[in-house]
Amino acid sequence: MMTSQGRGMIGRSIDEIDTPALVVDLDAFERNLDLMARRFPAGGQPVLRPHAKPHKSPAIAAMQVARGAIGVCCQTVDEAQVMVDGGIGDVLLTNVTVSPAKLSRLAALARRARVELCVDNPLHIELAERAAAAADGVLHARVEINVGGNRCGVQPGGEAVPLAQAILAAHHLRFTGLQAYSGNAQHEHDHAQRVARCQGIARDVAATRAALAAAGIDVQVVGGAGTGTWDIDADLGTYTEIQAGSYLFMDGYYLRNRGADGRADDRFAASLFVLGTVVSSARRGHAVIDVGTKTIGTDRGLPQVADRDDLTVTRISDEHIVLEVRGAALRLGERVRLVAGNCEPTVNLHNHFVGVRGGRVESAWPILRAGVRVLPL
Amino acid sequence: MMTSQGRGMIGRSIDEIDTPALVVDLDAFERNLDLMARRFPAGGQPVLRPHAKPHKSPAIAAMQVARGAIGVCCQTVDEAQVMVDGGIGDVLLTNVTVSPAKLSRLAALARRARVELCVDNPLHIELAERAAAAADGVLHARVEINVGGNRCGVQPGGEAVPLAQAILAAHHLRFTGLQAYSGNAQHEHDHAQRVARCQGIARDVAATRAALAAAGIDVQVVGGAGTGTWDIDADLGTYTEIQAGSYLFMDGYYLRNRGADGRADDRFAASLFVLGTVVSSARRGHAVIDVGTKTIGTDRGLPQVADRDDLTVTRISDEHIVLEVRGAALRLGERVRLVAGNCEPTVNLHNHFVGVRGGRVESAWPILRAGVRVLPL
Repeated sequence: MMTSQGRGMIGRSIDEIDTPALVVDLDAFERNLDLMARRFPAGGQPVLRPHAKPHKSPAIAAMQVARGAIGVCCQTVDEAQVMVDGGIGDVLLTNVTVSPAKLSRLAALARRARVELCVDNPLHIELAERAAAAADGVLHARVEINVGGNRCGVQPGGEAVPLAQAILAAHHLRFTGLQAYSGNAQHEHDHAQRVARCQGIARDVAATRAALAAAGIDVQVVGGAGTGTWDIDADLGTYTEIQAGSYLFMDGYYLRNRGADGRADDRFAASLFVLGTVVSSARRGHAVIDVGTKTIGTDRGLPQVADRDDLTVTRISDEHIVLEVRGAALRLGERVRLVAGNCEPTVNLHNHFVGVRGGRVESAWPILRAGVRVLPL
Repeated sequence: MMTSQGRGMIGRSIDEIDTPALVVDLDAFERNLDLMARRFPAGGQPVLRPHAKPHKSPAIAAMQVARGAIGVCCQTVDEAQVMVDGGIGDVLLTNVTVSPAKLSRLAALARRARVELCVDNPLHIELAERAAAAADGVLHARVEINVGGNRCGVQPGGEAVPLAQAILAAHHLRFTGLQAYSGNAQHEHDHAQRVARCQGIARDVAATRAALAAAGIDVQVVGGAGTGTWDIDADLGTYTEIQAGSYLFMDGYYLRNRGADGRADDRFAASLFVLGTVVSSARRGHAVIDVGTKTIGTDRGLPQVADRDDLTVTRISDEHIVLEVRGAALRLGERVRLVAGNCEPTVNLHNHFVGVRGGRVESAWPILRAGVRVLPL
């Protein structure tokens, strides 16, 4: 599938890419991939199960698995389907679902891959068991606990016990352990506060493990962590499974947040850019490029111009960004590289990662979604 | 094309739609369509050229044209291609471009449709002429003027004259007039301020018309206006062409903004909803639904729950919304309808409009993008 994609663009100069385009600096990207893989090699503990939601690309997931990742995380059943169809053999849905249609799709995927999901209510277990039984297959399941995100998940401690027991009692489900992710910890800017949040999660996990142990239930897997806290969590030993995802690309948000604490793991570098073109420059000190909210995410602030101190993004609309130009005027047609505030919603707006190295297009990995066919670039 | 879409879902109960789904209340939608069409009937002045960027759907564009619209506006060449391929015969790119590849695509579309674009620089004209000449065709062109949006466009007045002259001198281009749109006017909350901005635009247009007239150049078309100001602009007589788009769907933003001035044209109603399902409810006064920033736009504030005073959206992440529940607890599987703050980025995240009437699915119009094939629902 991958080799048939992007044949039209591959080998061409980056100047021939029509804009706006989602460009991956392959050198920086591979460095990020390798850095995390060295920290969590195959066979070690904890294992790396990177989140696939930042990329939605089986091509990239395959690179992560080839470097030792045990499989991937997905946030939706659509993502899980794309990953299993793309050849990934171990997929965790880091989410709960009550949809019989979605559970039936998961059970079908479980014929070809190890598929696991989260539960925080007896109904989740009942519906998952029904779907797995109908497919005559097996779904793995873990109990989600609320470790500060206040989204899904039961409270840490004894609430997990009856759910774990119900999974253990279900013929077509296999209990694995706990899901204990908190976005709040990832997004804490202050390093000391972030460590404190991670310590709180470690205590929540320990209390839940203890309650399960008292009920004679063995917890094999504890999943969580992200690009904001993976190193802190690894030091604390909270998790058996590290689920970072954005480390591949980094973004303005994580670069700012991880830069603040000055740690050595700060070596992850921005590898993802939106390439734009100057289309209008009708006033002095002002230029307009062909990137906007439909091609770059803005939920964590305005994009920043890479490698240019003389340019600042001042405004954004659907298909335009207005730049303040402090140096020489930009010429029409000039290219500008932007770093998104948040890589995830940005990727979600594109159909391909255009991989570049040495000024040439080397790859064009489709960003896949269920229900849509991406045509070659 | 449309009749082959969505056959699996059509006729089914709305309860069978898997979520998250982008749902159109067809009764409200058609009322909105009809209201605007009655105000700007075929053959009248000004004409209606609705913006297609909120819907990206030739099916919907065809309904607008059938009710008297002269054609549509597009913000990107991808949108223009989708519209012409979908049978729309008159497309304006409300944007400038310097991409030879995009101009070549526009010139190819101009073999099958009337295609017009905007310019604010001699280079735009030179490149458009080259592309049209290479295709041995004709592109229509208008000069974009800056009427307060401070994005693209030359300053009102004499700056438009040499550009109009250059278009007139180009063998494969046809000069039509002016593009004079300001998003700032649309988004002015205060009604008196909004009227003042529209009056300023009317003066800018008049000054530019006068400068062109002094040079012996006839302006046939002046385009602009949007859902925030179309009625004010129509009263002022600024435009020959009204380019509103969001009126079809309305959204939290426009409902709030247009509600504030209490005018009679406030009759446009919300017709677009994101349908979600309660997937978790692990704490009292709290529920989580399966809609997030990847399925609903948040650049103009958090979504609102339709028809429910007891539910408030408190937080949103990629695939989750957390609701505060003040009344009875929600049960897992319960459906919730959300009104987006901004309809445009919301539509941009989906692949189909699921049209419903009387509790049943009546249509499934694909949201089309160049380079992607949407599979039937």
